[in-house]
Amino acid sequence: MASSSITSPNLTSPSFGIPSNPAFYLSPLSSLHLRTYHHRPVSLITAGKFRLSCSLSDSSSPHLPPHSPRRRPEYTPNRISDPNYVRVFDTTLRDGEQSPGATLTSKEKLDIARQLAKLGVDIIEAGFPAASKDDFEAVKTIAETVGNTVDENGYVPVICGLSRCNKKDIETAWEAVKYAKRPRIHTFIATSDIHLKYKLKKSKEEVIEIARNMVRFARSLGCQDVEFSPEDAGRSEREYLYEILGEVIKAGATTLNIPDTVGITLPSEFGQLIADIKANTPGNQNVIISTHCQNDLGLSTANTLAGAHSGARQVEVTINGIGERAGNASLEEVVMAIKCRGDHVLGGLYTGIDTRHIVMTSKMVEEYTGMQTQPHKAIVGANAFAHESGIHQDGMLKHKGTYEIMCPEEIGLERSNEAGIVLGKLSGRHALRDRLNELGYELNDEQLSNLFWRFKTVAEQKKRVTDADLIALVSDEVFQPEAVWKLLDMQITCGTLGLSTSTVKLADSDGKEHVACSIGTGPVDAAYKAVDLIVKEPATLLEYSMNAVTEGIDAIATTRVLIRGDNNYSSTNAVTGESVQRTFSGAGAGMDIVVSSVKAYVGALNKMLGFKERSFSTLSKTTLETNKVPA
Amino acid sequence: MASSSITSPNLTSPSFGIPSNPAFYLSPLSSLHLRTYHHRPVSLITAGKFRLSCSLSDSSSPHLPPHSPRRRPEYTPNRISDPNYVRVFDTTLRDGEQSPGATLTSKEKLDIARQLAKLGVDIIEAGFPAASKDDFEAVKTIAETVGNTVDENGYVPVICGLSRCNKKDIETAWEAVKYAKRPRIHTFIATSDIHLKYKLKKSKEEVIEIARNMVRFARSLGCQDVEFSPEDAGRSEREYLYEILGEVIKAGATTLNIPDTVGITLPSEFGQLIADIKANTPGNQNVIISTHCQNDLGLSTANTLAGAHSGARQVEVTINGIGERAGNASLEEVVMAIKCRGDHVLGGLYTGIDTRHIVMTSKMVEEYTGMQTQPHKAIVGANAFAHESGIHQDGMLKHKGTYEIMCPEEIGLERSNEAGIVLGKLSGRHALRDRLNELGYELNDEQLSNLFWRFKTVAEQKKRVTDADLIALVSDEVFQPEAVWKLLDMQITCGTLGLSTSTVKLADSDGKEHVACSIGTGPVDAAYKAVDLIVKEPATLLEYSMNAVTEGIDAIATTRVLIRGDNNYSSTNAVTGESVQRTFSGAGAGMDIVVSSVKAYVGALNKMLGFKERSFSTLSKTTLETNKVPA
Repeated sequence: MASSSITSPNLTSPSFGIPSNPAFYLSPLSSLHLRTYHHRPVSLITAGKFRLSCSLSDSSSPHLPPHSPRRRPEYTPNRISDPNYVRVFDTTLRDGEQSPGATLTSKEKLDIARQLAKLGVDIIEAGFPAASKDDFEAVKTIAETVGNTVDENGYVPVICGLSRCNKKDIETAWEAVKYAKRPRIHTFIATSDIHLKYKLKKSKEEVIEIARNMVRFARSLGCQDVEFSPEDAGRSEREYLYEILGEVIKAGATTLNIPDTVGITLPSEFGQLIADIKANTPGNQNVIISTHCQNDLGLSTANTLAGAHSGARQVEVTINGIGERAGNASLEEVVMAIKCRGDHVLGGLYTGIDTRHIVMTSKMVEEYTGMQTQPHKAIVGANAFAHESGIHQDGMLKHKGTYEIMCPEEIGLERSNEAGIVLGKLSGRHALRDRLNELGYELNDEQLSNLFWRFKTVAEQKKRVTDADLIALVSDEVFQPEAVWKLLDMQITCGTLGLSTSTVKLADSDGKEHVACSIGTGPVDAAYKAVDLIVKEPATLLEYSMNAVTEGIDAIATTRVLIRGDNNYSSTNAVTGESVQRTFSGAGAGMDIVVSSVKAYVGALNKMLGFKERSFSTLSKTTLETNKVPA
Repeated sequence: MASSSITSPNLTSPSFGIPSNPAFYLSPLSSLHLRTYHHRPVSLITAGKFRLSCSLSDSSSPHLPPHSPRRRPEYTPNRISDPNYVRVFDTTLRDGEQSPGATLTSKEKLDIARQLAKLGVDIIEAGFPAASKDDFEAVKTIAETVGNTVDENGYVPVICGLSRCNKKDIETAWEAVKYAKRPRIHTFIATSDIHLKYKLKKSKEEVIEIARNMVRFARSLGCQDVEFSPEDAGRSEREYLYEILGEVIKAGATTLNIPDTVGITLPSEFGQLIADIKANTPGNQNVIISTHCQNDLGLSTANTLAGAHSGARQVEVTINGIGERAGNASLEEVVMAIKCRGDHVLGGLYTGIDTRHIVMTSKMVEEYTGMQTQPHKAIVGANAFAHESGIHQDGMLKHKGTYEIMCPEEIGLERSNEAGIVLGKLSGRHALRDRLNELGYELNDEQLSNLFWRFKTVAEQKKRVTDADLIALVSDEVFQPEAVWKLLDMQITCGTLGLSTSTVKLADSDGKEHVACSIGTGPVDAAYKAVDLIVKEPATLLEYSMNAVTEGIDAIATTRVLIRGDNNYSSTNAVTGESVQRTFSGAGAGMDIVVSSVKAYVGALNKMLGFKERSFSTLSKTTLETNKVPA
């Protein structure tokens, strides 16, 4: 009984589910296209040069074919054997993580790096090792693990560490990345007049000297793969750019990254910039040119594509486009634009990304960073596919292709009529583990055991336990920071008629129980004040948000909070070189929104306390005392 | 005492606050630029052709100068006297409102239309009058009011209604817009092979015949301003496009809008499409060419700019880029890109938009539609300006211009150090009204009175009442749908230890009180079930989200819900022609998250009941009975 729902015909789909009814896919449009492209991965051709990018192999098989991208060229730092191959350099863990509130723990970074490797990104910029001890350790761990996991095709991602143009930063970066099979150092210095004058206070000649020496220094450490970025290239004087880039090529740089740091260029301009650099930089044929486009005017994806069209063969992107200010070019938009239009409009460009992992990666990054995508975010937003928008299923069947330019399955998104009932209250532990594996989660026994009991509790109260519910529970159970404090119990009374009152019971890391009660302006305020009475680590709540992850009033809601410690938790911002106060996010899921709110707050406090412990080699007595208060 | 905080020096700033310290703006960068551009509105030049778009007139004045855009050319439907002027056509109320869950009430539409007029958009597409009676009435009201409010410069927005290519739609659109000073009918029919074949099932010749006749019909009704769109132009055969466009010009069309309906083109392609149409369509010199770019690949802003660069002089956009699927080109991105780079990269293009109203418009649309922007949304996202991101204020002072390409004040955003304490618990009614006026809200006496008592309640409990708090309260008090049901009181008990229980007291439209209690899986579930026991209008909760609008644990939280009635609430989708089930959003604000959750739910139910009443000319007995249940 327990596993029956697992073995039913429409649930034997691979991880990123496909509908049980092949007709849904192949009629009437697909059949047309099958005629056109028989016995090949199907491209739904809608007009001469417009491709409905959808890989369906055969009308008799309801399964998606295994991902078979064009062969990824072998990796050589400064050369790509196939002139049409574009390397994808993901900087979610560095540029993305520097966005306000997106602070990630080392464990979260490692999870994301693993997922990026599944996605098949060529280079993972794992962090800015000189920022803090925490950042250094995270990059090192990723280099040691993900950077050494070679798949059957010989693929292993390059692990890259960022450094400013000074010896200490570069040494630190090398110490962190050198354990990877393919380590890279990425160093940068600003080259625009405004940055030279106000930020660096150096002459053009001085900056060239520094850049040349530091690239040479990085090579001298034994690093064969050195990337150099002239910061604010978008606003830098052209001739000066050619000169400094030519010099760092001579010094041994293998990739030249051209950032539009303030996101001010239009696509035609940025494309021209890349074309000019390719035409005028001495020695450019011996290096890879890369794009790095900020999104301040909403043009980062277009600028990145314009750069690639002009000859850039590396694109720097982040998942969901996160990053400081308006963020970066988003991986999913750039990759899907190249996939949908690379053949027809971009001269045959392609990437090595397995797009079927896009949705899961997007969700993981959303979950860990707390930076939620808007419903109308291209590719990964909740509304991005028309079939979700209340247009009747009938309409979709009739019109498919009239309003969709790609299949949701291609990015790993299940159609809503498939993302339905999965498990019920009679499902067993084995069924749960199987479904989680299908969803891409590998849990250890203890995690599974904890999760199973929570699953049972939900199943008792909810008629249907969906994939979305499971993912919320996994996030809550598995994606939590290591516990310093743990919520045991709480009770609340509130409403319009009286004072909100909350009682909270927490356990410390030794298992000792602490109870406190407080009143407040609302139930969350009361509960947080009770937590503060126990934890005694002053923090300011910066953001608070909540979403129900599933339909219906009895939904599981996920609460996210962002806090800033009133004591000092700082690290160095790579771009500005300034010390910034880190902020910490926490998430909690449950059917009671007040309980989930408290779990999120305790999670954020744990994340902050964990960061503190790793950031300072010697823990002060005060810190230790703060973490272990008596009842 | 009460008004002292209002009259203090740093609070006398105009509505969209500027810092009290001029040095903050004008040193050290601005002084440089003042030297360059003395006695003119200051443009912060950072390199030859890169402009920090910021209009500061004089270092001695802490105030922003009044908005002085270049003079808007007089309005003639098919001609613009200044070849560099780009018309902004806002379709938030039509294309934006059709996004899932974004359903707006007539009052909300009117509020947004008023705000769009403040912003100075040239054309407001107010809706699709044939969709439902509700849509018709909303367009008509906007035409009668906003469409007749001429400002001192002679500006009044064109009010446009969408219609499919049939007589009934066009007549309905005309009936709705004809009351405006400048009415426009916008009619469309698909022209791509895939749409002709699968959606219209008509030949190319038949479609030309329909288009020609319907444009002529619209003109015959007395409408001098007719826009025609060949739907899915991005995928249509070129020669056919030139032909049909040439024919509708002969039939009297004054604007030709070129939609990339599925968002599949890259900027170079879309720019070429516009250029080709300008080069090959007979009679194109007698009409305005317009862009309408969907965002499926994240390229809508770039495509729109490419279109304008190729000669389009109308851009169709929405606030925050909302719309079906991945939405449309966003007004703020397109307008700010033209403002920042129009002179240097786009051959001198400019718009008539008063950008200082962007933030308020964005917030209003976010509030009313429930479609929240992501933190890294360009221009209007919470993180869009570097100064919000934890970089120390010192750093900003030193670096201003190194990482900002426009001033936040220019879009009406206050710097965070200015968005601080405004009112305290001793502030009076007069101070409250003044501050609200400064924030752009004009309340009537009853609204002010209601708001004042809520303000006092908050001020009693919170140390500081900020602008953000006030805006949340206004949203909650003023932006609510007309009340059918009203929350009077409620109480809740919940926690990890027992069953969640809620008691709710509502008043119906006659003021009669109804009480019910229920248990649930959490406090919100329990409370919603209690509401359902009273209201008896079955609905499914589709989305549930919450945000704290201000920092601190004692913050005001705003809850948003989206519901779908289990009974039929449908209207016609303009694009697909199908009947769609409408969904309804509700918002509630307060310091108790459970109370705000219930207010949001009651608000959404009220919105749904209001829509129902307006949608059917004859109310069924059942409906009436449902709306007024006995206790």
